[in-house]
Order: sequence, then structure tokens, then C-alpha cells
Amino acid sequence: MINIAILGFGVIGSGTAEVLKRNAETVKAQAGDEVRVKYILDLRDFPESEYADRIVHDFDVILNDPEVSVVAEMMGGSHPAYEFAIAAMKAGKSVVTSNKEVVANYGVELLACAKENKVRYLFEASVGGGIPIIRAMSTSLVGNEICEINGILNGTTNYILTQMKLHGKTMQEALKEAQQKGYAEANPDADILGIDACRKICILSALAFGELVPSDLVDTKGITEITTEDVEKAEANGQAIKLVARAAKRGDGKLYMAVSPVAVNNSNPLSTVDDVFNAVLVRGNTLGDVMFYGAGAGSLPTASAVVADIIDICRCLGNQPEQQQWVKSENVTSEMTDPMKADYEARVGTPLCK
Amino acid sequence: MINIAILGFGVIGSGTAEVLKRNAETVKAQAGDEVRVKYILDLRDFPESEYADRIVHDFDVILNDPEVSVVAEMMGGSHPAYEFAIAAMKAGKSVVTSNKEVVANYGVELLACAKENKVRYLFEASVGGGIPIIRAMSTSLVGNEICEINGILNGTTNYILTQMKLHGKTMQEALKEAQQKGYAEANPDADILGIDACRKICILSALAFGELVPSDLVDTKGITEITTEDVEKAEANGQAIKLVARAAKRGDGKLYMAVSPVAVNNSNPLSTVDDVFNAVLVRGNTLGDVMFYGAGAGSLPTASAVVADIIDICRCLGNQPEQQQWVKSENVTSEMTDPMKADYEARVGTPLCK
Repeated sequence: MINIAILGFGVIGSGTAEVLKRNAETVKAQAGDEVRVKYILDLRDFPESEYADRIVHDFDVILNDPEVSVVAEMMGGSHPAYEFAIAAMKAGKSVVTSNKEVVANYGVELLACAKENKVRYLFEASVGGGIPIIRAMSTSLVGNEICEINGILNGTTNYILTQMKLHGKTMQEALKEAQQKGYAEANPDADILGIDACRKICILSALAFGELVPSDLVDTKGITEITTEDVEKAEANGQAIKLVARAAKRGDGKLYMAVSPVAVNNSNPLSTVDDVFNAVLVRGNTLGDVMFYGAGAGSLPTASAVVADIIDICRCLGNQPEQQQWVKSENVTSEMTDPMKADYEARVGTPLCK
Repeated sequence: MINIAILGFGVIGSGTAEVLKRNAETVKAQAGDEVRVKYILDLRDFPESEYADRIVHDFDVILNDPEVSVVAEMMGGSHPAYEFAIAAMKAGKSVVTSNKEVVANYGVELLACAKENKVRYLFEASVGGGIPIIRAMSTSLVGNEICEINGILNGTTNYILTQMKLHGKTMQEALKEAQQKGYAEANPDADILGIDACRKICILSALAFGELVPSDLVDTKGITEITTEDVEKAEANGQAIKLVARAAKRGDGKLYMAVSPVAVNNSNPLSTVDDVFNAVLVRGNTLGDVMFYGAGAGSLPTASAVVADIIDICRCLGNQPEQQQWVKSENVTSEMTDPMKADYEARVGTPLCK
């Protein structure tokens, strides 16, 4: 029996409990032992839940229980997620998370702490929901030098842009509809201003290049100024407007990073990624282009990624492999060099702003 | 220094040497040590090659050298690839391969031999060229029960079908062009009759369900009977004809498997996969659909997958994790059950034969 604790019983936290229950047999076979949710930390009580007896309000209960080997943090936000993860790892527990904010802000410290304590800090669910992009970049693509990443990393804005394209809706109409469907929050700023996509490209860029750039240094533009005319003009040009998060290493060693709407050429596979789906197009120097596509959000898909990380840790209990370490970097620009820009426009499309 | 041997200095074998050379720094950083090609086994000599001094003609030289920890088999065909892989593993060497034929025919025995000898047998490059589908199914998707796999697994036939669609060519015209471009062999039967795609779906199906079905038990239909009229009719119906290899677990526990042309609905992401690209759409019970897309063939993309496997083994030298084991199975049918068929046609498309 392998005991885990879930921090935060919201959409992803409850989804993780559900995936572990629904796929219990598969998880046991893959993890090599039964995986049991021993504690769920939340401010609230859930008297009606089948997990009511596992709810705790004090993190120290989890921290001080030597039976807990894995902590799954799905609280969101930087604090106290960061402090809890550090404390758990210092107590010899591996940590998995779906929290892109804490990884984008403190990834360097979190990975260093994991290494120091011979545990792991895994974050597959932090980018692209259930799409297995983090593990692919950490394992399958490592024989390559990554040249460039282009991602549709935010489902809400992709839904809005798809509605504008297919049904001629305005940004505001499509946003309202997204809110009604639960795809956008009451305060949609993190999505429509590109902040969410920016955090995610900072994580992917750190995986590709080893350098974690603070998200506030990345030139980030959302979709708020996109008009139906822009969408129609792109269509007439054989393009589709997408919010694309980009990262590449320039010839001079500087990281190029930006988040902005791009009129993507219809010949590029990103142009066909519609609705709330996400996709990440990675270019390796010997691999060429590979694309990963799937549900970028949602309770069960994202929880599937959390569970994959839990299984990965269970397979290596007592002998966790060392992870890639990152360094903090401000070595970033939003300027493409000249041949790079022409090449980008030919292959991918035309950024609507720098 | 980690020493490897390459078996077969053809397209993939020479590509592997090239990727190891071109990305030497990255490979060293990821593998934890320098990876050196100590031997290359081939029937031919390559006096002009920079690797001329590493060419050997006798496999025993490799087998009896305790310095060689990894053997990369890129010979193709079942024999002697199978015997060489078994002998290498019995000598304590891990094996990686790009050879779908030997994996589809002898995967059960090869994985059992790896387990018995505490080494690994990895085959990322056997399906989908550089697309990291094998490792994703072995690691990232393991928290899911896989419901269904649909793949465009053969680049040659996809190129031909794309030419028929975009330029109104006949099958024969497009095939001839594919041969001129080097995408199809002089004897194109393995591609156009669906045999190559069949071997690959047998491998993916074994990964998903643990049961390896002999490829000759899978109902396999190629593209030879597809006419320009079929292509036009599909287009008028909002579909695109693709050679789709399918595998799913039916409610009664039987494996459903088939390879045949399918008129894929334009709403399905497989419909947009054109030219020599490959894509695999995997449906998990909690993950939903994820798709992996990329160059399905070619020297350097496929070699990238070989190198990723080599690095994976290097990271675990002396302590290789145990791999999933397969059983041989004849528990296969080409009949979809009734609700399954309607669901398939709504989500994916209409098979042009059973």
C-alpha cells in the first residue's frame, strides 16, 4: 500500500481521487502496489463526500505521517503551495502538482529541493492538462537540441477565437458564452490577457533550455483587441488567429519568448486546433516538428496527468532518479532576428503584435 | 564513457551515428556520460566513412566485448535481428530497435528475455518514427484504461492519399511519384497493402492491452482499391480518406483490430494529417483523446527516437527498471459491436471496408 495526500479538494483534487478510484486496478498494476488517498487537505469540510473521513485542515498531520510517500498539490497559487511542497520534500516525500503558477515562479528552488532531498517534484499537469508534454520533453525528446516551441496553451482563449472564426461572434459575446459554459472564470483576466499561457511557456522553455525566465519579463499580449475583422482578414489570407506562446533559442544564445495572437498559416497543424483543445508544437534539430494535442483542461484529463506522475514516483520508491535542474535567467528578448522572423512567418504565421 | 554498437548501417543506423555526433553535448548531458559508437555491424565495408574503423562483420566481436552496454539494432527483418537481440540481452546488454517486424513477431519473447536478464528492450523508433508514442503509452498514459487507438501509421500511403485528394491524381500516379521521391520502395507492397501499418498497430495494441496479436490475424486492407471517385465522394461528405489502423477493447473483452481505409470526418484531428506525416490518436477512459503527430519516417527523426531510448538506458545503467510484459493472444476480431460502430462513425469516420 502506497499512501498519498491530496492538497486542495477542488476540480483537479477531486478529479485525482476519482481517477485513482475508477482506475484502481490499472493504477495498482502500473504502480506495483495499491495507491490509497490517506488525507485530503482543504479549508472546507465535505460531509457528503465518500472521502469525508480523510479531510484534514492541518498540513502538519500529513507532514508528520511517515506513511505518506507522495503529496499531490492541487491548491493553486504560489502560497502556501510553495511552502507546503518544500516542507513535504524536506520530510522525504515526493511532490506532484498541477499548479503552473508555483512552478513558473519557484521551479528553480523546487527542483533544487527535490534533488537535495533525493525525492522528485513532478508537474505534468501544470501545462496542457492531460497532454503528456512535460514527460515527453524530459525523456523522449532529450536526444535533440530543441530549437523552438509554439503552443496553444490556453483553452479559454482558444474557445473564444474558435467561436469568433466559426460563428462570427465578437470577443465579448464569445467570452460571455465561455463563462456560461464554465470555460472562463468570472474574472477572466489571467486567460484573456495571456498570463496563463505565459506561465506555461515559461515552464516549457525551462524544460527545453534549462533557464527559467520570470513570467513578467515575457512580452505578453492577450486576445482582448482581436476583432471580427481581424479574424475575417486572417481567413481570407489562408490563416487562423490563435493565441500562441512561443520560445526559441536565438543564434546569439538569447532566449526569444513571447505570447501573442498569431495569424497561423492553414498549412501549420496548430491552425486546426479548435475549441478548448491545447496543442504544443516542438521543433528538434534532428527530430523536426512533433505536435502533442489534447484536452488542455478539465477535471479528469488533468487528473490523469497527476496520476501518471504519482505512478512514476511509485515505480521508483526509495530510488528516485535525479531531475533536470534549472537556473534563473533574465536572458530574454521579444525580438526575433531577421532571418528568424522570415522563417517563422513562412512556417508558422504572422504575429499580430511583436 | 558508455559504449554502444550499431547493427545495420543503413538509413536509420547511419542516422543514429549522425544524431549522436551532431548532438554529442546534449546527449552527454542527458545520458550522464559520453556515448560512443564502438562498433558498427554490417555486411558491407564503408571505406569512405568516418566510421570505417568501427565496421565489423562478426557479431561475436560485439557480443564478447564487455565494454558494450547497449546494442542498437537497425537491421530490419526478423532474422537474425531476433537472435542477435536475444544473444545481446543474455550477455547483459540492453537493446534498442527501430525494427517493427521483429517487435510485432517476437515482442513477447524479447520482453521476457529482457526481464530475465535485468536489461531493457526498447523500441520507440518502431512506430511513428520520431513521434514519442511508445514512451507516452508506457509512462504518461498509464493512469488510464486505454479504450481505443486510431493511427495513421504509414507515411507512404498517407502521401499517396494526400496527392489524390489535393491534386486529383490516381493511386498509380501518386504511387509512382512517391517512388520517385524515395517515399515508397520499388516493391511497395508492405506499404500499400497495409502490412506495415498492421505491424505497428499490433505493437501499440500490445502496449495498451498487454496482448500481442499475430499480425496475420488482423483484418488488413490497403489502399490499392481506392479510386479518385472515392476521394471526391468523401470530400463532398466532409471527410478525408486515410489508411487508419485501429485497436480497441470490446465490452466482451475481445480485442477489435483492423487496418483499412476510413473516410475520416473533417471534425476529427486525424483528417488534417497530410503528406508523409503520421499521427496516433489515443482515447483514455479519463484522459479523453490525445493525439501525437510528427514525421513518421526519415533517417534523423527516427534516429532521434533510437537515441532517446539509448539515453533512457544510459540513465539507468546497472539498475534497469522492469518493463511491461506481453502475452500472445489470438483473442481478436474485426467486428465492431453495434453501439461501438455507430459511436466510431460519429467520432472518427466510416471504414470503407469492414
